[in-house]
Amino acid sequence: MRILIVNVNTTESMTHAIGMQAQKVAAAGTEIVALTPRFGAESVEGNFESYLAAVGVMDAVMSYGQPFDAVIQAGYGEHGREGLQELLDVPVVDITEAAATAAMFLGHKYSVVTTLDRAVPLIEDRLKLAGLNDRCASVRASGMAVLELETQPERAVEAIVHQAGLAVSEDHAEVICLGCGGMAELDAKIRELTGVPVVDGVAAAVTIAESLVRLGLSTSKVRTYAPPRTKRVTGFPFTGHTPGLTARSFANVSKSLASVKQMS
Amino acid sequence: MRILIVNVNTTESMTHAIGMQAQKVAAAGTEIVALTPRFGAESVEGNFESYLAAVGVMDAVMSYGQPFDAVIQAGYGEHGREGLQELLDVPVVDITEAAATAAMFLGHKYSVVTTLDRAVPLIEDRLKLAGLNDRCASVRASGMAVLELETQPERAVEAIVHQAGLAVSEDHAEVICLGCGGMAELDAKIRELTGVPVVDGVAAAVTIAESLVRLGLSTSKVRTYAPPRTKRVTGFPFTGHTPGLTARSFANVSKSLASVKQMS
Amino acid sequence: MRILIVNVNTTESMTHAIGMQAQKVAAAGTEIVALTPRFGAESVEGNFESYLAAVGVMDAVMSYGQPFDAVIQAGYGEHGREGLQELLDVPVVDITEAAATAAMFLGHKYSVVTTLDRAVPLIEDRLKLAGLNDRCASVRASGMAVLELETQPERAVEAIVHQAGLAVSEDHAEVICLGCGGMAELDAKIRELTGVPVVDGVAAAVTIAESLVRLGLSTSKVRTYAPPRTKRVTGFPFTGHTPGLTARSFANVSKSLASVKQMS
Amino acid sequence: MRILIVNVNTTESMTHAIGMQAQKVAAAGTEIVALTPRFGAESVEGNFESYLAAVGVMDAVMSYGQPFDAVIQAGYGEHGREGLQELLDVPVVDITEAAATAAMFLGHKYSVVTTLDRAVPLIEDRLKLAGLNDRCASVRASGMAVLELETQPERAVEAIVHQAGLAVSEDHAEVICLGCGGMAELDAKIRELTGVPVVDGVAAAVTIAESLVRLGLSTSKVRTYAPPRTKRVTGFPFTGHTPGLTARSFANVSKSLASVKQMS
Amino acid sequence: MRILIVNVNTTESMTHAIGMQAQKVAAAGTEIVALTPRFGAESVEGNFESYLAAVGVMDAVMSYGQPFDAVIQAGYGEHGREGLQELLDVPVVDITEAAATAAMFLGHKYSVVTTLDRAVPLIEDRLKLAGLNDRCASVRASGMAVLELETQPERAVEAIVHQAGLAVSEDHAEVICLGCGGMAELDAKIRELTGVPVVDGVAAAVTIAESLVRLGLSTSKVRTYAPPRTKRVTGFPFTGHTPGLTARSFANVSKSLASVKQMS
Amino acid sequence: MRILIVNVNTTESMTHAIGMQAQKVAAAGTEIVALTPRFGAESVEGNFESYLAAVGVMDAVMSYGQPFDAVIQAGYGEHGREGLQELLDVPVVDITEAAATAAMFLGHKYSVVTTLDRAVPLIEDRLKLAGLNDRCASVRASGMAVLELETQPERAVEAIVHQAGLAVSEDHAEVICLGCGGMAELDAKIRELTGVPVVDGVAAAVTIAESLVRLGLSTSKVRTYAPPRTKRVTGFPFTGHTPGLTARSFANVSKSLASVKQMS
Repeated sequence: MRILIVNVNTTESMTHAIGMQAQKVAAAGTEIVALTPRFGAESVEGNFESYLAAVGVMDAVMSYGQPFDAVIQAGYGEHGREGLQELLDVPVVDITEAAATAAMFLGHKYSVVTTLDRAVPLIEDRLKLAGLNDRCASVRASGMAVLELETQPERAVEAIVHQAGLAVSEDHAEVICLGCGGMAELDAKIRELTGVPVVDGVAAAVTIAESLVRLGLSTSKVRTYAPPRTKRVTGFPFTGHTPGLTARSFANVSKSLASVKQMS
Repeated sequence: MRILIVNVNTTESMTHAIGMQAQKVAAAGTEIVALTPRFGAESVEGNFESYLAAVGVMDAVMSYGQPFDAVIQAGYGEHGREGLQELLDVPVVDITEAAATAAMFLGHKYSVVTTLDRAVPLIEDRLKLAGLNDRCASVRASGMAVLELETQPERAVEAIVHQAGLAVSEDHAEVICLGCGGMAELDAKIRELTGVPVVDGVAAAVTIAESLVRLGLSTSKVRTYAPPRTKRVTGFPFTGHTPGLTARSFANVSKSLASVKQMS
Repeated sequence: MRILIVNVNTTESMTHAIGMQAQKVAAAGTEIVALTPRFGAESVEGNFESYLAAVGVMDAVMSYGQPFDAVIQAGYGEHGREGLQELLDVPVVDITEAAATAAMFLGHKYSVVTTLDRAVPLIEDRLKLAGLNDRCASVRASGMAVLELETQPERAVEAIVHQAGLAVSEDHAEVICLGCGGMAELDAKIRELTGVPVVDGVAAAVTIAESLVRLGLSTSKVRTYAPPRTKRVTGFPFTGHTPGLTARSFANVSKSLASVKQMS
Repeated sequence: MRILIVNVNTTESMTHAIGMQAQKVAAAGTEIVALTPRFGAESVEGNFESYLAAVGVMDAVMSYGQPFDAVIQAGYGEHGREGLQELLDVPVVDITEAAATAAMFLGHKYSVVTTLDRAVPLIEDRLKLAGLNDRCASVRASGMAVLELETQPERAVEAIVHQAGLAVSEDHAEVICLGCGGMAELDAKIRELTGVPVVDGVAAAVTIAESLVRLGLSTSKVRTYAPPRTKRVTGFPFTGHTPGLTARSFANVSKSLASVKQMS
Repeated sequence: MRILIVNVNTTESMTHAIGMQAQKVAAAGTEIVALTPRFGAESVEGNFESYLAAVGVMDAVMSYGQPFDAVIQAGYGEHGREGLQELLDVPVVDITEAAATAAMFLGHKYSVVTTLDRAVPLIEDRLKLAGLNDRCASVRASGMAVLELETQPERAVEAIVHQAGLAVSEDHAEVICLGCGGMAELDAKIRELTGVPVVDGVAAAVTIAESLVRLGLSTSKVRTYAPPRTKRVTGFPFTGHTPGLTARSFANVSKSLASVKQMS
Repeated sequence: MRILIVNVNTTESMTHAIGMQAQKVAAAGTEIVALTPRFGAESVEGNFESYLAAVGVMDAVMSYGQPFDAVIQAGYGEHGREGLQELLDVPVVDITEAAATAAMFLGHKYSVVTTLDRAVPLIEDRLKLAGLNDRCASVRASGMAVLELETQPERAVEAIVHQAGLAVSEDHAEVICLGCGGMAELDAKIRELTGVPVVDGVAAAVTIAESLVRLGLSTSKVRTYAPPRTKRVTGFPFTGHTPGLTARSFANVSKSLASVKQMS
């Protein structure tokens, strides 16, 4: 089984880290392929960058020239998952939703601890749309920027653990979701300090994607996520260097998209 | 990995079927052990029977004398999952929630098709409490009793497919959850006739339980699902024939329960 | 009119206190009969114990050998009320819902002050299912265990009044519900200290049960609370000492249960 | 105990009927006094008339020259209850809320059957504000005007029973609330034809008012329903013929209102 | 275009201020006519006064003898808007809803800062009924009475700015609505001190009323806001001095009201 | 005042029609500039196309070389508005929200009639996120594709009017929102046939944008819509032909974007 995991920003080191983390929890026999968008922001911390990422992720997936069995969008609170679901015949899993879903099996309420305060409403909105916010006690910001998680790891741990502690004591969270792709290493530390389960979205998404594939389940195509209708689309994929799609890859791609792409 | 899957009724043939179905989707290396409550109703179709089942399932699990890594409660819309979460240190997965969770990765809205009309409010209530009802388009009854699924399989298929079709056309469901443990064989038929993905709760629960175990995640013990406090409990487990619990099994059981049981 | 009021734990002194309290507010001509479950926990402070109580209460009611006109389940935030509603033809009133209902006639928002923090989610869930949570400002824990209400009454008053005060000042509650059967004596003190009406669930439940009986109203039997279907039930009532049910008592019991019981 | 029950329209025959109906279910020792507003519409079927009624009811109660222990506002879905709660120290019960509250003890979902379609949104809004709409399956209109209930009783029964039947079969209501003061006589007929409990708001309100009085509970005065502040009010009560309020009556009236009235 | 803006209290100086403020933001060609109710309270700070205001505003509008194109009800959180919508054929805009609507175009969440704490639940209820509360972060009270806004302007500014600051920092509001007609002058100061947009309801209502008129849109008459049915209404308008309505004015008034009034 | 109105698809004739329609309702002195994205789909009927549109609209606005005072995104149910709000200092109005907002001033509930069934969930999701769905009775599809509105106008009218009629009679809508930019001409016809007000989103958006500008209100920059942080962005605007931004235009653009762009 091959799972594509797509970073939402253009920072290759983060793509690498996400890929490693995904491979670590993957089942034997699962190959993880980590992709970086060809355009977009070096970190995604707002709607402008998130919308660029939505298209950047779709571009990266559609330009990938090999067959694959599932796609994970590895951005916390980002736009775009629904577009991928239309374009592909294989399951698509967003890490925000994967983490929330896992957390709900573990405690009565969960909280998300994320990076900057400005990311909070995006995450809240994504959970609301996904119908997974009813048992969300809070989304809290550590005040650390995405890239600072790499450059100031110690301060990041401290800030995140502090907010996780408040989520448990003030907001009555019983589980913490790490609200950013770059936070994966912090699991153990937070669990030790707060005493509650800590869910990493990438890890959760890998097992969910594997499960759906194993069960032969994929996106319903009857309405919301039906393939795009055949029509003229200009300028996508953006670079013009669309790699030849293999036959297997086409199996992944919703049929009518073939026509879309030919026209573009 | 050993996963206990517990039937909610006392009909052994259904326990067997559920166990088979679970083993079929389990990963290599996962051993499924199917348990039947020692008391309760031959089919669970209402609150009286469901409360009996809640205690019957706890009794069955606590009386099981071997170590295990996760528990699945295989009743659709039944009471009891929260009690198991208190008693155990390993993850507990309810098939109602497992199915809903999987369905939400597959379509914008999902419906549940269950047995009798009287089961509908129970399922609605369980989904509401679990915070998984926001994207539930409807819970529909086929009118078939639980035991009729075995005795009148053809009529059952017809009735269920009919309601699944209405869920898609009238309620705008994009995914169907089979709302009863005994419906597992119907997947393929319904998928074929409605064109939408069909989720069987037992299958979904197995992969979720496996995933949680693999990720090292289990029930949060800080609040709602903390182990029962040490106190005098009379008459549980009910039969008095509590098999000797092995050391490993104790690892599964929340610590303070040891005292609970000694007092009972 | 005879009203059964059933304690959810096995502590006889609490049953006695609840019965006294109920009789005190009952109308002339109302006989209160207080029952204690034959099995279960000495205090109910969590889901495991609450599920035991659900069955213990049903067992106690079904084993009671005299006619009665209504049943009150005297546990705050406990499971089981729906089961009784199926089994009986007379009205069933849960004190959690009775208190909330009364409170909503008295102020814009109400709060519940209960015992331990771990009871909070149970109460929240019961109010949510009952559709009575929209005007609930908060459920607060005093940190006192159920049995400590008897053993440390002064500390209990202090702790409860403190939380009631915070509910009013911080959460904007205008009415306080006493979230435990054992708190009834505290009414006056809290009212004096907070200046808001204080609702005791047992008292509220008695007047509601009397009202329903007087109006000739009882549980609807068309769907959710229809009598259990005739089927084989093993091991209920648990003790095997089912006292002979009188004719009048049968009038209370949903018809099909007769068959259920004969098979058990 | 004296309970004022105030009609919302100016039709004396309806006031009389409401009073009779209330007295019928009242406890021995409860005196029902039925009041008619001195101004307003002969039937209330919309917001303009309902706002007039809100003030007309307050005027009628404040002009009543005797002591009383509780007030019932006998309009279905009408404005005004909150104003009475500010003006009075005794409990105030609205029949819309009383009926919903009783219904929620009797079934999983309830429906309201009312008069004209235009009354439906008013009732829906009142239930929504009261936080009692979560288990409301539907509010249905019979198409009969308020006054037609008296002039065309047979057609009214037929129309109401028809909608009640649809509420049960289509909307899954398990209890029916009669959504108009003038519908009280129809109870038995609807119950017989639909097989579900039928709640009359006036009857429910009487027992609730009695219960609150007996429990010594009344409106919380700390915030929303605090007495009006002392200030200049022009033109209320409207007629200028304010009957002398007795000492006992003043006990009913929130203190600061005394000053309000002197200034008016 | 002529827009009536109706004060909810009887304080002429406030009517004057509201009128000035409305005229200031009105488009060239819009004439603002500010009306004061002929009865009611000198300030509206609770439900009793608000219900009086509801009828007082309707009385003022119906007694106004000239044609007009829209009506603004200039009370924050007050009753009555639905009645006006029934009575009139021209658009009716409530400033509570106007402010919320504008705020929702400006930020993810908004807060309202109002006068006394007792006004908070009224505003919350109005926003809830209007379906505009989902993105309301909080309604906060400055503790200043309505009339104190005029007599103690400096203390008022301080108190309001303080609460606005808390709304931003604690409740995550991104926009502040000034929750009282008398607060209009404070815009600039609050904006400067909190750094967020500040919406004055009167100003917002003027542009919305103008827009609806320009687009040829007015209240739907098919159901909730259909004209009052022809029936006997006693005592409205209250003073009996109904000024002769001009032909144009009748165009504003829903047809059936003509009959209503003749009967009164 | 200059308002940019941006089409979400690449069909110039639709851009032209939208511009005409906007200019028609604009105030004297308002200049409407209609823009077409430089890439994307010829019609937007799903998430893939809508995400492309989100970026295409941002690209079009940022590449526009002249000053402007507000931006309207003229797509019904499309992604992207939040991104524009971050990028710009002037108000941004989405026609989906503009129409809903206007409708809520006109009736108790509104419905949206849109093109294809697959657009329904997108519109529902946009209204849900905007917190404007509480009074939405339904979103109905006419079954007409976006481009068919131009090519088959008669059939379109018929289909849309049919659904509008059902929205009124079945779903109790009192106002209809035309759920597509290309439907503007149909207003009169639908109003005539259904008897309810019909809101065109483009018209509503123009008056709202004008109003916000006139009131000096624009997007709050304290949190969700703060300007993008200074960072490296690759590949935006996409074509590389970024026209020189004038000084005035910079005034529109959030400051930090300057740095963003220089780095791209």
